[in-house]
Amino acid sequence: MDVSTPLLERLVERRILVPMGVDGLYGRSGIFESVVTGLESAIARAGSADEAEVLRFPPAMPRTEFERSEYMKSFPQLAGTVHAFCGGDREHMALLTKLATGEDWSRDHKPTELVLVPAACYPLYPMLAMEGVIPGGGRLFDVQSYCFRHEPSADPARMQFFRMREFVRVGTAGQALTFRDLWLLRAKTLISNLELPFEIAPANDPFFGRAGKLMKDNQLEQELKLELVIPVASAQPTACLSFNYHQDHFSNIWQLTLAPGKSAHSACVGFGLERIVLALFRHHGFEPGHWPAGVRHTLWG
Amino acid sequence: MDVSTPLLERLVERRILVPMGVDGLYGRSGIFESVVTGLESAIARAGSADEAEVLRFPPAMPRTEFERSEYMKSFPQLAGTVHAFCGGDREHMALLTKLATGEDWSRDHKPTELVLVPAACYPLYPMLAMEGVIPGGGRLFDVQSYCFRHEPSADPARMQFFRMREFVRVGTAGQALTFRDLWLLRAKTLISNLELPFEIAPANDPFFGRAGKLMKDNQLEQELKLELVIPVASAQPTACLSFNYHQDHFSNIWQLTLAPGKSAHSACVGFGLERIVLALFRHHGFEPGHWPAGVRHTLWG
Repeated sequence: MDVSTPLLERLVERRILVPMGVDGLYGRSGIFESVVTGLESAIARAGSADEAEVLRFPPAMPRTEFERSEYMKSFPQLAGTVHAFCGGDREHMALLTKLATGEDWSRDHKPTELVLVPAACYPLYPMLAMEGVIPGGGRLFDVQSYCFRHEPSADPARMQFFRMREFVRVGTAGQALTFRDLWLLRAKTLISNLELPFEIAPANDPFFGRAGKLMKDNQLEQELKLELVIPVASAQPTACLSFNYHQDHFSNIWQLTLAPGKSAHSACVGFGLERIVLALFRHHGFEPGHWPAGVRHTLWG
Repeated sequence: MDVSTPLLERLVERRILVPMGVDGLYGRSGIFESVVTGLESAIARAGSADEAEVLRFPPAMPRTEFERSEYMKSFPQLAGTVHAFCGGDREHMALLTKLATGEDWSRDHKPTELVLVPAACYPLYPMLAMEGVIPGGGRLFDVQSYCFRHEPSADPARMQFFRMREFVRVGTAGQALTFRDLWLLRAKTLISNLELPFEIAPANDPFFGRAGKLMKDNQLEQELKLELVIPVASAQPTACLSFNYHQDHFSNIWQLTLAPGKSAHSACVGFGLERIVLALFRHHGFEPGHWPAGVRHTLWG
């Protein structure tokens, strides 16, 4: 295929992605979505032996829990809060006038109780906290949700709204680390079966500002985060999966305990669904029916 | 089954819905989602003869297009705008102080370019406008997306974020009305096959304020909107599907034309996926494996 034309342009030409007028926001075709569905099945099969509890969350979570999460300390630039009009007839008239004259009408909106989900596992921890002490064997979840990150970009692999599938282990430090190692192996097998070139490397989250530098260094040094990167649409390969050991970070925030005084540790593996699907189009072409037999078998059995 | 206990409570007991701490926001179990998947397949089969173009949109659309849509004129109370922090290190410090002291930290956020999608067909019209004159046979789309409506409620059938599947016809007035009549028949068959009790009745959208009264009356009088209602969790049956004839409303906003000077008309049928799934649990019990054979066949073939 002609790889001199940017991937986004080629996907738009073939109407696999449809631009919506804002960077990082696209309509997707039935073909794109059929690959997402196949990928989710393949991921589920890779983890099926574990019998994780399946939970699916909407694109928002309670603001009060988000406030506790320390997300605004680490990644304030990425979060999205939901605001709404809360006035009566009089305020409505004023709002319509602003709309008509091109003034900023949404500045008068008030914050609602909702913040957009920044990562699929965030709604899980407050839910776990409500459910009390973690039982001896720990807990394991299979979650998925739309996530929002405010980082408009012309790179199709950096969408503002995207779907993240995650498996999350909560238990002892040993259980968390064993889980992460297991998924490193499973992920290598899965991405190999999808015949995509990849590397795994230590990584850091995009911590904000001057104070963030220290947190990045710490995360790298302790190898708390690993990423599986695949060449997609930018000069550098794109992180398509991440493997995170949180230590007792979330347990300290939400008091998740294994026994009185004993904090739980947690780890997660996250799959960027749109990114992996884009990688498949990038490397195997635009007609999934013509993809290599092994790839099709991995996706659709 | 014991119907004296409210539906929400029974779903939560069985962990089919998991409360997230805000009315209208729930985690859903794998069982709930398997019914959503089955329902979407059944809907697709009902409309498969039409070969509609499949498009899937993220939960947000561009604010500029939303402004044109007149949604804020009719339903300002329901819309959700996405706001984000846009400062540097200094503003970040101030934000963290507010968070620590319990002040409202998100009031300083700025509106982004995004507004949450209020109905699955809203992102479609601006896209159509960009694509120019509608060809002679008109166009037909199969869309789905998460929709947001700011109406926190203890009724599980009134979620703040929910998924809406829609078929949308754009063409002549005759094509739009024929399409709506066809889907009225198809929907009756589908909901009958799901063995759910229903009625179809003229309806109106929740137009805002004093001026909204006139718009409600007009919509009812012209029978522009019909709803298929099913008893779910409240005293009144819940609108689970709606059948809408927009006349040339959206074409006038986005200049959708069939030929120079000839406005397109449009119609849509919308399926409230969570509502129909809740109706299935309400009427057939909490174990889909034990639902009547005909219902299971309709959902899972």
